[in-house]
Amino acid sequence: MTDERRKIMRVLSGETLIPPPLWLMRQAGRYLPEYRETRAKAGSFLDLCYSPDHAVEVTLQPIRRYGFDAAILFSDILVIPDALKRNVRFTEGHGPEMDPIDEAGILALKPEGILAHLAPVMETVRRLRRELPVETTLLGFCGAPWTVATYMIAGHGTPDQAPARLFAYRHPKAFEHLLMLLADISADYLVAQIDAGADAVQIFDSWAGVLGEKEFAAYAVKPVAKMIASVKARRPQARVIAFAKGAGYLLKTYRQKTGADAIGLDWSVPLAFARELQKDGPIQGNLDPMRVVAGGKALEEGIDDILRHLGSGPLIFNLGHGITPQADPANVSTLVERVRGWRN
Amino acid sequence: MTDERRKIMRVLSGETLIPPPLWLMRQAGRYLPEYRETRAKAGSFLDLCYSPDHAVEVTLQPIRRYGFDAAILFSDILVIPDALKRNVRFTEGHGPEMDPIDEAGILALKPEGILAHLAPVMETVRRLRRELPVETTLLGFCGAPWTVATYMIAGHGTPDQAPARLFAYRHPKAFEHLLMLLADISADYLVAQIDAGADAVQIFDSWAGVLGEKEFAAYAVKPVAKMIASVKARRPQARVIAFAKGAGYLLKTYRQKTGADAIGLDWSVPLAFARELQKDGPIQGNLDPMRVVAGGKALEEGIDDILRHLGSGPLIFNLGHGITPQADPANVSTLVERVRGWRN
Repeated sequence: MTDERRKIMRVLSGETLIPPPLWLMRQAGRYLPEYRETRAKAGSFLDLCYSPDHAVEVTLQPIRRYGFDAAILFSDILVIPDALKRNVRFTEGHGPEMDPIDEAGILALKPEGILAHLAPVMETVRRLRRELPVETTLLGFCGAPWTVATYMIAGHGTPDQAPARLFAYRHPKAFEHLLMLLADISADYLVAQIDAGADAVQIFDSWAGVLGEKEFAAYAVKPVAKMIASVKARRPQARVIAFAKGAGYLLKTYRQKTGADAIGLDWSVPLAFARELQKDGPIQGNLDPMRVVAGGKALEEGIDDILRHLGSGPLIFNLGHGITPQADPANVSTLVERVRGWRN
Repeated sequence: MTDERRKIMRVLSGETLIPPPLWLMRQAGRYLPEYRETRAKAGSFLDLCYSPDHAVEVTLQPIRRYGFDAAILFSDILVIPDALKRNVRFTEGHGPEMDPIDEAGILALKPEGILAHLAPVMETVRRLRRELPVETTLLGFCGAPWTVATYMIAGHGTPDQAPARLFAYRHPKAFEHLLMLLADISADYLVAQIDAGADAVQIFDSWAGVLGEKEFAAYAVKPVAKMIASVKARRPQARVIAFAKGAGYLLKTYRQKTGADAIGLDWSVPLAFARELQKDGPIQGNLDPMRVVAGGKALEEGIDDILRHLGSGPLIFNLGHGITPQADPANVSTLVERVRGWRN
């Protein structure tokens, strides 16, 4: 059983803690000077992800500085297509790119040697669990099949992932095959992270918001439900946070349909709706990352609103999306102090 | 009173028509060879918007080809910042750009000579009303203040309009000033379009989806409510469609709070939720434009779902966002025939 001192694990099991525990998406990132320093030494971005020395270091940096209640493995959702030999590369100022895949390419995908390719990630997780304070929850993660597939189809990010939406309409069978293959690989990957020492895992469906209702059910809910069932069948103690960014109204049944223990909320989710979702279990979110950049009153009011509406139920305080490079580290200190100082 | 033969006007007054009337956002556009031909002759994109000869021609092209129930004035939401001398330019492959504005720039904005600058647009509307079939509703439009402001602040489009969100947190007073100034100018602009012959107008809030709940109330709802109140006080017969793309759950009260006659729905809006919204009045939407590109079964099923769920109430059939350049004009014919052939 997980150590009782890991507050985020307690919330993930349904407990309400006052004040709520907190961490920030992309808390190990470019807003921190110590991150930029390690990043400069690491070679390419993927080199950083695959170097246990560097990945452990950047994962620990925000824990040292702020004492967040969770550390999240430093990695990227696109290590899965990289393991599938899609020639993933991160070029400064370009966003991620890879070789776009077509129908024949999907059918030819060989999901072999994935975990061997990702062994350095598991080594990072193992070392992290050893080096982290005992009270810090260690989170693993991966991308949701839909989001990972959108990049694989287009070969890069797009404003509304139209290439993947179109591909799915044109080639529903091949697309379904791709999603299920990604679901299987990703479930194995999450189990491996858990075995290496992750207490809980988060599934990022960053592009869930561009889907119509039926497609959301088929492409966002179904593969994530498959993954979670597979992980939980093998590792019943594991906790799963599912974050379907932009899913809006469709979040209503997302927890129940996917089997996630907690659901992540982006900053567009109204707090009254979030309160409803919280009646079914723990939620995580949902401060606009721009409030952290702005600081001052905008930051304080945003934090207070969330705590007032959601602080009396099972809540993991977080942002509604990753912290951005232009955030001032001093504003993050303000955030941490304000959340930790809250009493309802 | 508007001609009884204008079906879209009847639906905008709350009538249910079977089959529903239809038009498509961006129906005058690059997917049509005749549009590309006129576009090539017109000089810059703004030259096309400001040339009544060319703008009338491209507005009429999809009416000739498909007999849509509405023609929408060919123009762009960024003619307002252009009239405000923000140096707006459209460079092929770059998206729109303009000089980014700061706090001092906002306070120095002089909303003078706007309608004189936009006189060619009103000339286009006048000619269109003369040339269109009597049964065709003529729609004018403008951008919502929030969406127009996001471009003015950043100087270009961005993935989630973070620059404007940040600016609004940092400089709430200047931002409010900008929104209210845009609301006033835009209301005058819509009244001028109505006086020139537009039957109804649509307000496009393409970036409503990136706002938190409070910001949605302050930046999306409030200025649009102000515009609609201003337009309706002066031209009580005018009908207004408000399209807040990505607003999701917040659409629940959007019609009531803005005073819009009809609300536009993007393709992510679940049909059961759309049905609820339709109980309060007419709705417009919401086929995924990628279904038109895909054609075949994906197109037919998407159309049928919408008609089955929403066809028995006041509906204007439309896409959930603009039609894209890669759509095959033959698929648009299929769409028109299928909607027109529907009986519930």
